[in-house]
Amino acid sequence: MTLLPEHILNGYRHFIEGRYLAETQTYRSLARDGQAPETMVIACCDSRAAPETVFGAAPGELFVVRNVANLVPPYTPDGEFHGTSAALEFAVQALRVRHVVVMGHGRCGGIKAALDPASSPLSPGDFIGKWMSLVETEARQVSANELLTTSEKQTALERISIRLSLANLRTFPCVSQLEAKGKLTLHGAWFDISTGELWAMDPTTGDFQRPLIDVEIAAIQAK
Amino acid sequence: MTLLPEHILNGYRHFIEGRYLAETQTYRSLARDGQAPETMVIACCDSRAAPETVFGAAPGELFVVRNVANLVPPYTPDGEFHGTSAALEFAVQALRVRHVVVMGHGRCGGIKAALDPASSPLSPGDFIGKWMSLVETEARQVSANELLTTSEKQTALERISIRLSLANLRTFPCVSQLEAKGKLTLHGAWFDISTGELWAMDPTTGDFQRPLIDVEIAAIQAK
Amino acid sequence: MTLLPEHILNGYRHFIEGRYLAETQTYRSLARDGQAPETMVIACCDSRAAPETVFGAAPGELFVVRNVANLVPPYTPDGEFHGTSAALEFAVQALRVRHVVVMGHGRCGGIKAALDPASSPLSPGDFIGKWMSLVETEARQVSANELLTTSEKQTALERISIRLSLANLRTFPCVSQLEAKGKLTLHGAWFDISTGELWAMDPTTGDFQRPLIDVEIAAIQAK
Amino acid sequence: MTLLPEHILNGYRHFIEGRYLAETQTYRSLARDGQAPETMVIACCDSRAAPETVFGAAPGELFVVRNVANLVPPYTPDGEFHGTSAALEFAVQALRVRHVVVMGHGRCGGIKAALDPASSPLSPGDFIGKWMSLVETEARQVSANELLTTSEKQTALERISIRLSLANLRTFPCVSQLEAKGKLTLHGAWFDISTGELWAMDPTTGDFQRPLIDVEIAAIQAK
Repeated sequence: MTLLPEHILNGYRHFIEGRYLAETQTYRSLARDGQAPETMVIACCDSRAAPETVFGAAPGELFVVRNVANLVPPYTPDGEFHGTSAALEFAVQALRVRHVVVMGHGRCGGIKAALDPASSPLSPGDFIGKWMSLVETEARQVSANELLTTSEKQTALERISIRLSLANLRTFPCVSQLEAKGKLTLHGAWFDISTGELWAMDPTTGDFQRPLIDVEIAAIQAK
Repeated sequence: MTLLPEHILNGYRHFIEGRYLAETQTYRSLARDGQAPETMVIACCDSRAAPETVFGAAPGELFVVRNVANLVPPYTPDGEFHGTSAALEFAVQALRVRHVVVMGHGRCGGIKAALDPASSPLSPGDFIGKWMSLVETEARQVSANELLTTSEKQTALERISIRLSLANLRTFPCVSQLEAKGKLTLHGAWFDISTGELWAMDPTTGDFQRPLIDVEIAAIQAK
Repeated sequence: MTLLPEHILNGYRHFIEGRYLAETQTYRSLARDGQAPETMVIACCDSRAAPETVFGAAPGELFVVRNVANLVPPYTPDGEFHGTSAALEFAVQALRVRHVVVMGHGRCGGIKAALDPASSPLSPGDFIGKWMSLVETEARQVSANELLTTSEKQTALERISIRLSLANLRTFPCVSQLEAKGKLTLHGAWFDISTGELWAMDPTTGDFQRPLIDVEIAAIQAK
Repeated sequence: MTLLPEHILNGYRHFIEGRYLAETQTYRSLARDGQAPETMVIACCDSRAAPETVFGAAPGELFVVRNVANLVPPYTPDGEFHGTSAALEFAVQALRVRHVVVMGHGRCGGIKAALDPASSPLSPGDFIGKWMSLVETEARQVSANELLTTSEKQTALERISIRLSLANLRTFPCVSQLEAKGKLTLHGAWFDISTGELWAMDPTTGDFQRPLIDVEIAAIQAK
């Protein structure tokens, strides 16, 4: 029996023979000097939307919290365990990151369960239903619109929940104070697994648009 | 003003022109058919220890929850929000992963804060102290042993907390039942940021060892 | 004084010296033999979304009706004037087109007026309000969802109204009968003025997707 | 199965790789700033007489309503649906166009049906007969003149109906008021599919003449 799943070991082998060897000095510096990421990403656990992959990140670049559906609960200092809030506090107060990106993605299983709890395989669970209740009101409102297709509802709630998480982020005093001083910027992003497109939220309107569309058009022109 | 930090956009540009184009069909299949990862990883938010990077993961390969110090709280169905437990439930019950890997790493800031709360910049925080109290008993005991150096205490608690998280994982009925049936395997791993070494936990003894040590040495020699 | 606006005459000059001369034989044949378009397009009057331009159409290729917001009223044989229904009848029964495409587009002024009649400069008008009341129920339902941004509501209603027009098309006996026999196919399309993207409706789900995304990706690959 | 007819997709491909790429900035400006066409065209659905093609129009240049035989019904504020009147209202009151061009063309199928309803394949239809009854009186009078050939009758009614539509346009208060103030100009045009000639109506006499005849002859000579 191996101590780790075979695919994990094979992947690690590629890492150590490839990236680690190429970036040994970076890893050593990061170990010696500590991490100093400029950006925190709040992302989903989904296996298809890893922020390091999509954002082509170098070691030390992104401080990443990942939970189901990339949700940020509102500031609730009630003495209970709040893993995401703890990570936020760590990033903002200890690491002093300058950016927080809430990164959602298409076809999110958590959002799907929120929209259709009855047909979710998780309905009898103890935790996922409670967790997704963070967007319960929004899910109910989107679900009620029978003019939207299932897929349109899904995308709508994915984007609405990013806006909600950004609003919840601002309920944390440390976030709103640093943002007011211009020392912290909040961002929303949505990744389309199928097309590979990255959509960024306009902070004024809340709309999502593709910031690199010029690159795409240039590529077509170069054809 | 750009909608996303410049380094995020540049990284995404590399992704879309490189990896996404090379693996377009994989992304499309994953979008169409849904994710079916074999393995869940519980890892730390640390910017230097991304599981996808260290485990050289393909899209769709790893379902990843990340919180400060890769902790799993014990099973507590109290109706409160439990982000990590929700992710675990999702992975085990909906996605039916076959492996759960708790992945710790060296120089973990959360573990450091647990060992020396007084000097942590986070002491006045609302959340991180509570979160790290999950290993409070263990931290106190390690700290009290004055025979260990500061660095040894750090590594010791990092590994102790991996064993603790594995024990907590087994308090979840869905985990212990599937493990008993041989349908789910739990693993511990610890990544050394400086040397790039991956240490795997022996499930019988709890010891950490390097499963690929020969490969590592050969690779470094070839450098 | 000129008989026609200067820009019209200049444009015609380009046509006659360019396209007409290049395609004189086509025009002569079409004049002699009559038109036999394979496809009818129901499009908006908007100056930025001409179907001949977007679909790169040759003379004789598209039979086009254009009204505000590319709406099709339901089949109502009440002896009143129904310009769009008359055009549909002409295309389907006399010209025997094989395809009908309802082509919507982004930033549609009619849809905007339907979503926000109060702020429309057309509110005191006699006709536009009545015309847009064809999607009044849908507009009210979309408007009520305060979780959507103004722009998201706009896109949602644009696509919902395409689906509604397709449903209304099927209330015409000549349409539904020919469709049942496989002699007529209905399509939905949505053109994004800003990005130039064409989105096509999946007839099963009603979702809009980009049929030429492979071309776009190939272009990026070719970069 | 493709979502859109093959010829539509091929045409779109030419558009996106050709015109859209050449005029990307224009499309973006038009999307961002909204349309501001100077001219509205009321044209026929005929596949051989697209105004954008014949008038070599740029995106954003022409606001176009198209119905069978380019007819304008008289002002009838009866609370019924009037698609053409709604489009006119939109163009004149919201977009404040400065010109309205009624553009007829030769070999118009609608006019032919009006002249000879008995032999029309549309006689049993619910809508086309009613729609063409807008020129019923005129059609009957032209038909009765046995001195004219069939072709002469056709051209005569095509031009008469343009003059009638212009007269009907002036029954709309918003049109006649703006025309009286010199803020709106009405024009008639007739396109000969076979020769490619554009004939413009003299507003004083109602006669049709070719404003660019010198250009046409030179161009054809140069061929």
